[in-house]
Order: sequence, then structure tokens, then C-alpha cells
Amino acid sequence: MATAFNFDLTATDGAARTGVIATPRGTIRTPAFMPVGTAGTVKAMLPDSVAATGADIVLGNTYHLMLRPGAERVARLGGLHRFMNWERPILTDSGGFQVMSLAALRKLTEQGVTFKSHIDGSRHELTPERSMEIQRLLGSDIVMCFDECPALPASDEEVARAMRLSMRWAERSKAAFGDRPGHALFGIMQGGVNRALREESAEALKAIGFDGYAVGGLAVGEGQAAMFGVLDYAPGFLPADKPRYLMGVGKPEDIVGAVARGIDMMDCVLPTRSGRTGQVFTRRGALNIKNARHQDDPRPIDETCTCPACRSYSRAYLHHVFRSQEIIASMLLTWHNLHYYQEIMAGMRAAIAEGRFAGWQADFHALRAEGDIEPL
Amino acid sequence: MATAFNFDLTATDGAARTGVIATPRGTIRTPAFMPVGTAGTVKAMLPDSVAATGADIVLGNTYHLMLRPGAERVARLGGLHRFMNWERPILTDSGGFQVMSLAALRKLTEQGVTFKSHIDGSRHELTPERSMEIQRLLGSDIVMCFDECPALPASDEEVARAMRLSMRWAERSKAAFGDRPGHALFGIMQGGVNRALREESAEALKAIGFDGYAVGGLAVGEGQAAMFGVLDYAPGFLPADKPRYLMGVGKPEDIVGAVARGIDMMDCVLPTRSGRTGQVFTRRGALNIKNARHQDDPRPIDETCTCPACRSYSRAYLHHVFRSQEIIASMLLTWHNLHYYQEIMAGMRAAIAEGRFAGWQADFHALRAEGDIEPL
Repeated sequence: MATAFNFDLTATDGAARTGVIATPRGTIRTPAFMPVGTAGTVKAMLPDSVAATGADIVLGNTYHLMLRPGAERVARLGGLHRFMNWERPILTDSGGFQVMSLAALRKLTEQGVTFKSHIDGSRHELTPERSMEIQRLLGSDIVMCFDECPALPASDEEVARAMRLSMRWAERSKAAFGDRPGHALFGIMQGGVNRALREESAEALKAIGFDGYAVGGLAVGEGQAAMFGVLDYAPGFLPADKPRYLMGVGKPEDIVGAVARGIDMMDCVLPTRSGRTGQVFTRRGALNIKNARHQDDPRPIDETCTCPACRSYSRAYLHHVFRSQEIIASMLLTWHNLHYYQEIMAGMRAAIAEGRFAGWQADFHALRAEGDIEPL
Repeated sequence: MATAFNFDLTATDGAARTGVIATPRGTIRTPAFMPVGTAGTVKAMLPDSVAATGADIVLGNTYHLMLRPGAERVARLGGLHRFMNWERPILTDSGGFQVMSLAALRKLTEQGVTFKSHIDGSRHELTPERSMEIQRLLGSDIVMCFDECPALPASDEEVARAMRLSMRWAERSKAAFGDRPGHALFGIMQGGVNRALREESAEALKAIGFDGYAVGGLAVGEGQAAMFGVLDYAPGFLPADKPRYLMGVGKPEDIVGAVARGIDMMDCVLPTRSGRTGQVFTRRGALNIKNARHQDDPRPIDETCTCPACRSYSRAYLHHVFRSQEIIASMLLTWHNLHYYQEIMAGMRAAIAEGRFAGWQADFHALRAEGDIEPL
């Protein structure tokens, strides 16, 4: 087991990359998709099942965990890994994004953000220093800098202001993080869809120096074309020998497009949240299990999928339990979606390693163009 | 694998009995607790997990399944076992109890019951003949006679009327069931808390002849003392060489008391429903995980329990995910409760087989009297 945080880039194919991140908690194969375990659980999944889908790392949300059960409590209970029974790597976000989207009565200053909890109205403060402390108390393996992420569209002035504040906070985050062998601190590039601001942000982060770099401020309303536009250049501003993490992305097509543009890590609630709302992702695109056309269909979601939902259940059953609001619907559909996402990642890793990523991408898009199997 | 339905009584200890029911779908060790899988799922559990708790058989509800997804649909999809991915034995109730407790605009006649669905208001009819047909379409291994079960307290006249109607329906159920090798039909004794009516009911059922006999009409408001009062004599009215099934029972103490009085099979929603509402059953009695005293407790629910919830999670974690309304709370607490129930059954089976059931019962009650472990 590694004792230090390390990234080995093992192959590239065009802009796409594959490699291995080593941490004392285990290795992370990249490109990596990280399921989101917001409040100490990947919703509707047991940790062993998350690992069985092929996930090497999950994400925890600082904002949610600081409010409930509280970072100090998690620390007293032995840290987040032990608390949630996930002994593999955990990445925690900084709380910056969610405090701006979820908390009430937010007040942003140079110092940080004060806000009221959306759960019980209690008052809290998040600063770069407090975010680093919380992520340390949680025991996070990959810690994210505290940043401000404006929703798009926003004016260049607003995007620039938020980016420069985030860069000052990145410096304070680095200072507060200190020296923690085996734990990594990632900087977060901001700058919206403005190339000059993205470059300025990247230069500021590189001057500080981080173990990895995130592309933040995307998937916040700009659309896929604009996001890919930024990803056409932004990863190139970052050091080639460090992992690049695209935050909060996305749909299967977004993930493939991001990897094609040099991204190594991603996270998104989409496969888990969609599982709970009946949306299922497959090689042939998305389908909604609550649609009446599934009610008599004895076929699985995808006859080639090896997840428990596809191995043992018909679309008719999944339709029935979803319509009946049975918990097993969330369990099985979430499992399927996470399994499918990890299958995409494994497929991309193998294709990049073997220098056939363009062909893999063409197959990926061709099958989706065919659409779902015909109703019976 | 057995090709016929068969019951072997292997040991008795006082009134308590242990044995094995053989069916083509597998064997059922008795005394048996049957988790309830109302709508084609034991709520919050995957079938493999249900089996892992030690359950040999689950129960399906005719009333729910006939309304959604519909018995004919389940039959077209290969039957309930395949539909819900549970290849072991299934017992289905007749729909009689639930139509009287859940459906709207019920009209009871000699012929049967007409009612409106509580889901979509559609009109339906249940008769002995239709109940047998539905249970055959579902593919049930143990089929229950269609009966009327009045809530208690009720007048002797009302209890007698319902019991005699149920006996006429039992005769029609037997005729409609026909000859189905490998499948069993159980008669249901009624008669409330009236000994003479219970005896009259038992005689009527024995004259018809069934593969097993249920004690119905209990756990409907009469209280444990009155229930045990009936169980002190009612099982003795039934053939010793056939399984005796106490419907809808109960709490751990009820189950132990019922087995002590000669019951072989039971079912109840309590362990599953309680799991979803935070009530946890343990050797030391029940506790509610949402109680604030658990919020910092690093200890498991029960340090001697080998279920996944107790092996890998603290009370503090279970408290947190329950308060956060996370699905994993229902999953883990349900699993624990079902595991504990099956542990009680296994303990009783072994104790009866070894002639030490009285001592086992004394230990069971002594530990509960101690109560839950002290808060930290």
C-alpha cells in the first residue's frame, strides 16, 4: 500500500489519459467516476455494493456533513471512512459550492461565508481555514480548496471577481492544509467560459502548487457545448503530471466528452439521483422505467449488463416496484446506473491504454443513436 | 428436492414442536418466521439478503398483487417467484383479511366481497374461487383459504357468523383449489377468543381436510394475554401431523409464546415495518434508533449480532442516516430486525430439538428484563 499520494499517468491517446492514483487507502484507476455519498451514504446502496460496481473512491459533501452529523462528531467516531463503512479513498468537496446553492441567508466576504443551515436554521461559517479543518476531521483523502463557484450565465466581471477571490482562498487553503503525507489537496480552477480567466486561474493555482487540479465552475447552467468548449483548452493549462478533476459532471455523454478532452476524475449525483426517480442509463441512452410500455416487458433493462437489476429482474418488475414506491426500486435502479457508469469508465480506461479510444467513442455514440430496444 | 408437499415433525418439547416442511421449491425449517413481501418485495431488502437472514419462505399478499401489478400479468411474466427473484417457497394469503382492512366500499355477501381498489378506485371481486385462481396464477406454494376475519372485540354472534361463513368458504376454496401436487392448501380456523367456536371451526376444517391449518383471527386487537389464552387450547384442536400457522404475529415475545403453545409458522410486517420507522429489536428488547442518546454512541445495536448493520455500523451512524431519512437506514435496520427474528427461530428450533426449550425461554425473558445496554 502506498504511503504517499501519487499519480502515475500510464497511457495517453489523443488528449485522453489513463493512469493510477495511489493513496494509503487504496488506488484509484483513472479516468475515475466517483459516486456521491453526500451525507455519509451513497444513497440506496451498501458500501460493498458500491465497491462491486467498480468504484474506487466516493465523494462526501462537507456542507452536509458539517451540519449533520457534524465534523467533530464524525472525528470522535473515528472519521468518515469508519463512520460510513467505506475504507477506500474518499474525496470531500470544500462546501463552497453547496453553501451557495443550499444554505439560507448567505453572506459572502473576503473572509468566507456565513449562513444558516437549511436543516435547522443554525448559524455557521465556512472559510478556507474552517473548510480545511472540517475535511481533516472527516479524514478525507483528497481535500478540495474552498472556492466560490458562480452560476452561469454571469458577467465576465462577476466571474473574474469570484475566480480571483477563489485564488486568494486557494492560497489560504494551501496554508491551512499544511503538510499531511498521504492526503492530497486539489486546487480548483475557475473562470467560467472565459479563456483568459481560465488561464489566469490556472497560473495562479500552479504558482501555489497542488497535488491535483479541478476544473470547477462548469455544469452550472452553461450547457454541454459551452462546457466542451472550455474543456477544449482548460485541461491544457494544468500540469500534465497531476490528476485533473471535472466537478459535478455528468451525463454519460458528458463524461466521455470530458475524458476525450483530458479529464481524469469526475463526480455527479446523476446516476444515484436518477435511480431514485426511475431514470435508467444504458448503452442505448436513457429510459424511464415508469413508462407504461415496460409494464409487461419480461426483458431486462439491458440484456448485456451484469448488474443485479439486469441479471435477475424484468423491466416489468422494475416498473412495478417503481410505481409501487418500493425501496427496492431505488436500490436496483441506482445499482444499475452506478454499474453502467463504471462500465463506461472501465471501457474508456482499456481503450485509452490500447490506443483505440477514438473507435471506442464512435461505438459509444453509434449504439446510443440506435436508441432503446423496441417495445414488445 | 421433494416433489410433494410434506411435513415432518422431528421433535417436540412440551407443546413446542420442530420439524421440516418439504416443497418442490425447497424446505422450510419450523418453527418458521416468514418475512412479508407484500407487493413482490420484502421492503428495503434484496432477496439474497432475505435468504441470508435465514428465511426459508416469504409471504405475498393476494390483495396487493391482484391490484398491482395484477395476477394475470404476474402469471404471464412467469409467476411470482421469477417476478420477484425469490425461487424459494412463497405463501400467499387469500386477500380476505386485507380486503376488509384496506379496500373501500366493501360489500360482503355469501358469494364473496366486492370492493374498490385503494390504489385507483377500480372495482374488483374476491370470492373463494377467485382467490384460489389468483394464488394459482401467482404460483404460490402454500395457498390460504379465503376467509373473513372480524376485528376484535366483536360479539359472539358476529364472530360465529364470520367463522361459519369462513367454513363454507373453506369448503369452496378446497373445491376450487383442486389437486395440485407440490402445492399446499391451508385452512384457517376462526372463532375469535371463544373456545367453543374455535373447536367448531377446527372440526369443520378437519372434516374438509387440508395440508396445514392456520389459526386466524388473532393479533387483531385482542391483546397478548387473550391471544395466548386462545393458543393455550386452539392448536390442540388441530391435527398434530400438519403444520400450524399463526397469521400476522408478532412481536418477539408473541412469537416465542406462540411456539411454546404449539405453533409452527408465523408471519408479520413488524420487523420490516419497524426497520423503516427506526424501531430495532434486540435480545434486550426494542429500542428506537432516532433517540438522541444514540447520536454519539460508537457501539453497534448489539455487539453479539452478526448482521451487516451490527458488524459494520455504530448506533451513531444508524441514528444519523435515520434522522437524515437516508434509504440505507431502512435497509440496515430492516436487515437487522429480520436477522434477529431468524436468530430467535433458529434458537428455538435448536432448543426444542435438544429438549431444552424451557431453559431457552427463561434466558430469552431474563435478558430482555435487563433492558438495553447503558448509554455511554
